[in-house]
Amino acid sequence: MKTAEQYVASLRERDLRLFVRGERVTDPVSHPLVAPSVRTVAESYRLASDPEWRDLMVAHSRLIDGPINRFTHLFETPDDLQKKIQMQRVLGRLTGTCFQRCVGMDAINALYNSTFEVDEARGTAYHARFVDFVRHVQREDLVLCGAMTDPKGDRRKRPSEQPDMYLRVVERRADSIVVRGAKLHQTGVVNAHEVVVMPGRTMGPEDADFTVAFAIPVDAPGVTLVYGRQPSDDRRLGCEIDQGNATYGGQEAVVIFEDVEVPMSRVFLDGEVEFATSLVDYFAGYHRQSYGGCKPGNGDVLIGAAALAARLAGVEKATHIKDKLVEMVHLNETMHGCGVACSTRCAKTPAGNWMVDPLLANVTKLNVTRAPYQMSRLAEEIAGGLLVTTPSAEDFDHPEVGPLLTKYLAGAQGTTEDRIRVLRLIENMTLGATAAVIKTESMHGAGSPQAQRMRIAAQADFEGKMGEAARIAGIGREDVPG
Amino acid sequence: MKTAEQYVASLRERDLRLFVRGERVTDPVSHPLVAPSVRTVAESYRLASDPEWRDLMVAHSRLIDGPINRFTHLFETPDDLQKKIQMQRVLGRLTGTCFQRCVGMDAINALYNSTFEVDEARGTAYHARFVDFVRHVQREDLVLCGAMTDPKGDRRKRPSEQPDMYLRVVERRADSIVVRGAKLHQTGVVNAHEVVVMPGRTMGPEDADFTVAFAIPVDAPGVTLVYGRQPSDDRRLGCEIDQGNATYGGQEAVVIFEDVEVPMSRVFLDGEVEFATSLVDYFAGYHRQSYGGCKPGNGDVLIGAAALAARLAGVEKATHIKDKLVEMVHLNETMHGCGVACSTRCAKTPAGNWMVDPLLANVTKLNVTRAPYQMSRLAEEIAGGLLVTTPSAEDFDHPEVGPLLTKYLAGAQGTTEDRIRVLRLIENMTLGATAAVIKTESMHGAGSPQAQRMRIAAQADFEGKMGEAARIAGIGREDVPG
Amino acid sequence: MKTAEQYVASLRERDLRLFVRGERVTDPVSHPLVAPSVRTVAESYRLASDPEWRDLMVAHSRLIDGPINRFTHLFETPDDLQKKIQMQRVLGRLTGTCFQRCVGMDAINALYNSTFEVDEARGTAYHARFVDFVRHVQREDLVLCGAMTDPKGDRRKRPSEQPDMYLRVVERRADSIVVRGAKLHQTGVVNAHEVVVMPGRTMGPEDADFTVAFAIPVDAPGVTLVYGRQPSDDRRLGCEIDQGNATYGGQEAVVIFEDVEVPMSRVFLDGEVEFATSLVDYFAGYHRQSYGGCKPGNGDVLIGAAALAARLAGVEKATHIKDKLVEMVHLNETMHGCGVACSTRCAKTPAGNWMVDPLLANVTKLNVTRAPYQMSRLAEEIAGGLLVTTPSAEDFDHPEVGPLLTKYLAGAQGTTEDRIRVLRLIENMTLGATAAVIKTESMHGAGSPQAQRMRIAAQADFEGKMGEAARIAGIGREDVPG
Amino acid sequence: MKTAEQYVASLRERDLRLFVRGERVTDPVSHPLVAPSVRTVAESYRLASDPEWRDLMVAHSRLIDGPINRFTHLFETPDDLQKKIQMQRVLGRLTGTCFQRCVGMDAINALYNSTFEVDEARGTAYHARFVDFVRHVQREDLVLCGAMTDPKGDRRKRPSEQPDMYLRVVERRADSIVVRGAKLHQTGVVNAHEVVVMPGRTMGPEDADFTVAFAIPVDAPGVTLVYGRQPSDDRRLGCEIDQGNATYGGQEAVVIFEDVEVPMSRVFLDGEVEFATSLVDYFAGYHRQSYGGCKPGNGDVLIGAAALAARLAGVEKATHIKDKLVEMVHLNETMHGCGVACSTRCAKTPAGNWMVDPLLANVTKLNVTRAPYQMSRLAEEIAGGLLVTTPSAEDFDHPEVGPLLTKYLAGAQGTTEDRIRVLRLIENMTLGATAAVIKTESMHGAGSPQAQRMRIAAQADFEGKMGEAARIAGIGREDVPG
Repeated sequence: MKTAEQYVASLRERDLRLFVRGERVTDPVSHPLVAPSVRTVAESYRLASDPEWRDLMVAHSRLIDGPINRFTHLFETPDDLQKKIQMQRVLGRLTGTCFQRCVGMDAINALYNSTFEVDEARGTAYHARFVDFVRHVQREDLVLCGAMTDPKGDRRKRPSEQPDMYLRVVERRADSIVVRGAKLHQTGVVNAHEVVVMPGRTMGPEDADFTVAFAIPVDAPGVTLVYGRQPSDDRRLGCEIDQGNATYGGQEAVVIFEDVEVPMSRVFLDGEVEFATSLVDYFAGYHRQSYGGCKPGNGDVLIGAAALAARLAGVEKATHIKDKLVEMVHLNETMHGCGVACSTRCAKTPAGNWMVDPLLANVTKLNVTRAPYQMSRLAEEIAGGLLVTTPSAEDFDHPEVGPLLTKYLAGAQGTTEDRIRVLRLIENMTLGATAAVIKTESMHGAGSPQAQRMRIAAQADFEGKMGEAARIAGIGREDVPG
Repeated sequence: MKTAEQYVASLRERDLRLFVRGERVTDPVSHPLVAPSVRTVAESYRLASDPEWRDLMVAHSRLIDGPINRFTHLFETPDDLQKKIQMQRVLGRLTGTCFQRCVGMDAINALYNSTFEVDEARGTAYHARFVDFVRHVQREDLVLCGAMTDPKGDRRKRPSEQPDMYLRVVERRADSIVVRGAKLHQTGVVNAHEVVVMPGRTMGPEDADFTVAFAIPVDAPGVTLVYGRQPSDDRRLGCEIDQGNATYGGQEAVVIFEDVEVPMSRVFLDGEVEFATSLVDYFAGYHRQSYGGCKPGNGDVLIGAAALAARLAGVEKATHIKDKLVEMVHLNETMHGCGVACSTRCAKTPAGNWMVDPLLANVTKLNVTRAPYQMSRLAEEIAGGLLVTTPSAEDFDHPEVGPLLTKYLAGAQGTTEDRIRVLRLIENMTLGATAAVIKTESMHGAGSPQAQRMRIAAQADFEGKMGEAARIAGIGREDVPG
Repeated sequence: MKTAEQYVASLRERDLRLFVRGERVTDPVSHPLVAPSVRTVAESYRLASDPEWRDLMVAHSRLIDGPINRFTHLFETPDDLQKKIQMQRVLGRLTGTCFQRCVGMDAINALYNSTFEVDEARGTAYHARFVDFVRHVQREDLVLCGAMTDPKGDRRKRPSEQPDMYLRVVERRADSIVVRGAKLHQTGVVNAHEVVVMPGRTMGPEDADFTVAFAIPVDAPGVTLVYGRQPSDDRRLGCEIDQGNATYGGQEAVVIFEDVEVPMSRVFLDGEVEFATSLVDYFAGYHRQSYGGCKPGNGDVLIGAAALAARLAGVEKATHIKDKLVEMVHLNETMHGCGVACSTRCAKTPAGNWMVDPLLANVTKLNVTRAPYQMSRLAEEIAGGLLVTTPSAEDFDHPEVGPLLTKYLAGAQGTTEDRIRVLRLIENMTLGATAAVIKTESMHGAGSPQAQRMRIAAQADFEGKMGEAARIAGIGREDVPG
Repeated sequence: MKTAEQYVASLRERDLRLFVRGERVTDPVSHPLVAPSVRTVAESYRLASDPEWRDLMVAHSRLIDGPINRFTHLFETPDDLQKKIQMQRVLGRLTGTCFQRCVGMDAINALYNSTFEVDEARGTAYHARFVDFVRHVQREDLVLCGAMTDPKGDRRKRPSEQPDMYLRVVERRADSIVVRGAKLHQTGVVNAHEVVVMPGRTMGPEDADFTVAFAIPVDAPGVTLVYGRQPSDDRRLGCEIDQGNATYGGQEAVVIFEDVEVPMSRVFLDGEVEFATSLVDYFAGYHRQSYGGCKPGNGDVLIGAAALAARLAGVEKATHIKDKLVEMVHLNETMHGCGVACSTRCAKTPAGNWMVDPLLANVTKLNVTRAPYQMSRLAEEIAGGLLVTTPSAEDFDHPEVGPLLTKYLAGAQGTTEDRIRVLRLIENMTLGATAAVIKTESMHGAGSPQAQRMRIAAQADFEGKMGEAARIAGIGREDVPG
């Protein structure tokens, strides 16, 4: 396993084609807009050698029969699903933001199941090939970026009606394929070693070229990354206090594939359109579970910040403040509880991996599209108007006006600076850089709410429920019209 | 284990002092207001011999080393907590109402822990005595009523300030104690064999006489039961269709103790005031978990009824109807998910039993105080105005007007009677007899929402969360003011 | 104007064909299931001669140039719309239930506008005929029932596809038409003098026979009324206390038209299909406004009952109780505020009447489909479990058990009976007979929520809003794609 | 009346002591962080000469018997209150942000009432003095900043316990007073001509020095302004597209008074502690009404942006998208409806001005603390993840990667740039610079939600409601315990 330092060094060895704010950036690790997100991923390495967390962070891999970072682990047992969500809560709480490494973990678990099932049905040889890839990932302790979301363009059109809007195979060679297109919303891709591409939707017979899964290094020829612009990102360029969370941060990018050649040894699906849906379902199930771990971890920080802001203002014992803090905890634990439940109600897949309960995973994620918004609102209510009217750190440092601000913005306890720091952290999480993680990512990550609603509709067993209701109402079950 | 028939026969052997609507009732089993609730409890016996459910319903008791009904079981393993909640969902779904047997199960598990802990601390001999009682319950396959809620009178006063308002010991004899007082909201007590009384709140040094736990038969001398009046209860006296759920129902009663003598062999706590809180916490924890099983089971029926009403009206494919049904499922599974989670995150008690995670159990119950109300509203929205404007079953049977009603109230599918039956079931669950189970019991059973909020406040680890927030904000953890 | 006594006497003069619980009822005024609703309507007469309310209740009619009960008034001025909603709040607060007289008032105002517009466009003579009818109503001080909702059967089919499911003209004679069909959810029809029938939906060219508006006495030959069965209605047959609100109540019925002959002088629309939509919109606008008056009036009673229950239990000063009461007030006044606003933003119709703002009227009603549910839940939370576990009034009267109940169910203030009365009132409004008024009628009366949503979509001026957004975003308004 | 150009010129004539990001700024009008807010206020001048809006924007003043900008107007008639809220909606819709001029308008109306009442009770001469000031404001067409919120420090302490934390009189001279302290959250103060200071809370007998109201120019000696740092404010320093709303913006600042001398002719309250509460109530009532105008105007823009984003993505006809847009409209109009209602239910003050209904004004504001959060969440849901993952405008301009981004981020209609512009506007309003206006200001402006809740509790007439409930429940009104 890599140390955090080895991880960062390994990032420097890549030859990325990355654009940030209209400029090529060759050393993203040192770029102020990128560095916080690197530090965040690095925590996933650091914890694996931290005695306090090692037991949680390190798993034993059957594939390589040795210890590995849990982020590269397959869910070999039901307990692995429980440990996963515990690990995510710890990291979410430790960093207060998105640690970017879940999507790759969820991608390999989904592909592990799907490649097995495709082989079973079609006699292909994807699974062994994929297992080789996983062994490589585990031995090298790599960060993977899972790439699923195509640009989609006109939402009313299918892939074959707007081919540029879905990544596709444009050429098939003897030992490789060539792909073209883009993937959006790629969390952490700039901090990754490899990108694992999967189809992002149900495919029809005419969509064979769009039904492709593979892995390649992020610096493979033809791959271009463009850094996403996020709320309050320019704070990263200024002083530390005003950032709120100056150490950690998330990251999003667009990934463009300009005729990228993928060797056949890294191709895990190519044209088996009838398996696109189940692959998406496996991935979505695992990744919706993930949100029941990381977001409650982030929520712990937001609750703590709100509680601390209240204490520093002298209002922590006010009943209406306590009520709001309790409500925040209730919402936070509801997200987590559903995440735990979908892990508990797991089932073994044909490939031998363990899969979360899909209905409960969708319920988990649907709660995650709501609770963080409600929690943010409550935190803003507790924080008070100073959240958005406090002058800048430079003003506090100014010899003339600084002492006046320090005098007049003092609270009931702690220093004025402490108070400002806590308010800036709340600002960061509710309206600033991390709001994109706390809110938008909670809303749209692992699929937007409507995606969850459609799956819940399919998984809810309405027929069975109607039968029970009919029986109790005195109608024969057999009399329920179909 | 008793059969359902043996259970009903055993109820007839009791010599209850029961009042219903101002009259002594000697055969409650046959009383139309009571019979549905008897049939509901009887299902807990029937299922234990039903091949489909036997594995779930029958547990092996270490205490008597034999098979027992799970409702008399101690939570000897983590899996027992999972099985419990599954069993509750099945029964909730099968009956569409409260099956009344959980409170006794939760009471014996709470007392198992508490009696052990009191003995450990005080050198008393409650635990062995209590274990004897549990063996008796398991061997005889008894229904227990757990009695916790005192009348409380003026909520601002403590027990010692208004002694009549809390059940208390009025005399201590050599081999017995004598108790006086009342317990309210006693679910299923008329269908029980024994009542298990516990203190219902934190007690101070002056409250020793109020800190008493014991078990006695429901027909012990001095015990009087008064049947509660519930919404639409008179429907039970009329025709079957208009009841909505004519087979099953819940039950509440007031239990009055007029100087009831309790033999010392059935006394499990007497004056150890410092253990009242933990006994309440144990019971509340187990019982709040329970709501994550039964209410989602009830919810399945309500969802099924709403879906069926929509289908019969020809609107099931309307998007806004599907959205509402999905939302109902989401709310229902959120309740259940939290219930599963508090079971998963269990811990072993000093007595060797397994205890749910108290924070998640409180979160479960707090969700249960909300979701059923939202689900009811959605069901009413789907059902349409006919829910409360449909004429009575007698009108449909009338030779002149009946055919006209049958003609004009026909839907898109099924018979008019089917449609009315489904609407009556929804009425029953949202505004009728079972609304008291679906809503009020969800609100106040196992403690009102404010009770959960107070416990969440205590269990939320705000100090730890503030420490994390402070660290991330750049304030030393040690600088968090206390 | 009639006195309350004259009104009741006038009801006895009718020769209704009414069925209640499968039996013909010739004197509904004295029937225990009907009487509370009669008393409620009678309040609308009594108040017109009550010095405290006369100024609000009595209007001056331009049509007959004299004083009339405001419930028979046309909205001749903007102030009439304000007075209407004030009057509704007063009556809602006075009776705690539905006073049933609004729908007729709203119907005549809608038809006043529509008949004028049809005449203008088609050269028909409906308007003068209709004005004659209104003069008759004003002079005789009549209660009208407005009948709009057809059975609809299979919601996917149009009237011409299922003719029985929409009331229609089956024969046209020289001086009359003959109609057949049914109207559902007829609030207060048993207490009315005449029924005013209107089409309930948009009609197409093939739906001419279904596009008919007229008025006839409720006891016209061929008219049959069937009383609706509502939650807890049997309480009306028992003792007063357990009714909660023993004086007042609502009423719903099915009205069946078996080849009813309507004289031409009472026909106000017949086949002008293109005016069905605007007639529905006029009526819906006025009637959605109405809900911003009556429901906040009912809400006042529910808030008062919850506050009183809290006081009697000694918890009125608890912060969490006060918070819930404030939230109830907030929700109640939000409903009312929107009702006031749609009245303020009124406009003159071509006929010279005043029309509420339709968008705000829809917003009013959509709030009314939500707030009463939330208020009910809060009231149930404040009331506590006794709401559904209190024994019957007969038990309190029993010589043996009554004194025990009186002792143990005492609160902090007032008598035990006071406390039970207040709880029974809350039960009545949240889970009992009046819950159908507070909740279901709020949900589905004047159209179900989806009807409001569709109208809001049409009235929201999305194009204008997109233009503003485009301009601010730096896109030309003209560049907004259509 | 000034033109917009004259207004901007007049700002340049001031000699402000202003700090922005730790630096003295002498020409705020040209400062990129300030300029958008100046342009926004300038719109209030421009519209007064715009033929489309002149009738709404220009009022006739009785005080100077001439036309004035409505923002300097007293509410001389009920219609003035209606016009005020219409004007606010227009400006909110035109600018998509806070136009900063309301607080001064509301302050002069509050002081008009209070100075009259103090004079009546105490024989002081504040009113005539204040009227002179208003004439000056009207003639010069000034922007006023209303300053109410003190720093408050430890919320548990009163002013006299922490004198620095509340602005106070430190010296009284023959013709002037000297004040010291600070006021926070001063919306638009940098764009104002004068600041009107008022006490911000109920005062006790010991708080005479803190009970002071006065007006002074913003550049009076001893006055220092420190610009607030807001979310995404640095976007103002970059390219136009990424700002979302590059033209308009809000503004907050801290105002510090270092022994500022105020001539007696501008002192409007000094030590009359018993009038502090009613002054706060007047101001709060007017200002809570204001939020029912401006925020729905902002909401129009957010709704339009969300609708346009949906159209450009090709999803505008999807039912779940339409539902969300309708819900946004519903919430927006609910805010506005309550604002209209509190204006309609106005009453004449002793001074002859018109005052909104205080209960409905509090209800308005309490809705405003909620609806914008819900609307923002819905807008984010409609916008999709691109909201926070789109690269910067510089990337789109880059010769290599720009064309690729333009290709892959195209939507269904319009240009890619159009689409990005709309998304940036939504980002601006939900997570960016204007989120502070849409959300935080809605939450805490004119008092935080708890302030509204306390006032609602006081204004709800619980005693009257309990009396009605008691009567209906069969308890005598006189039997309601006090």
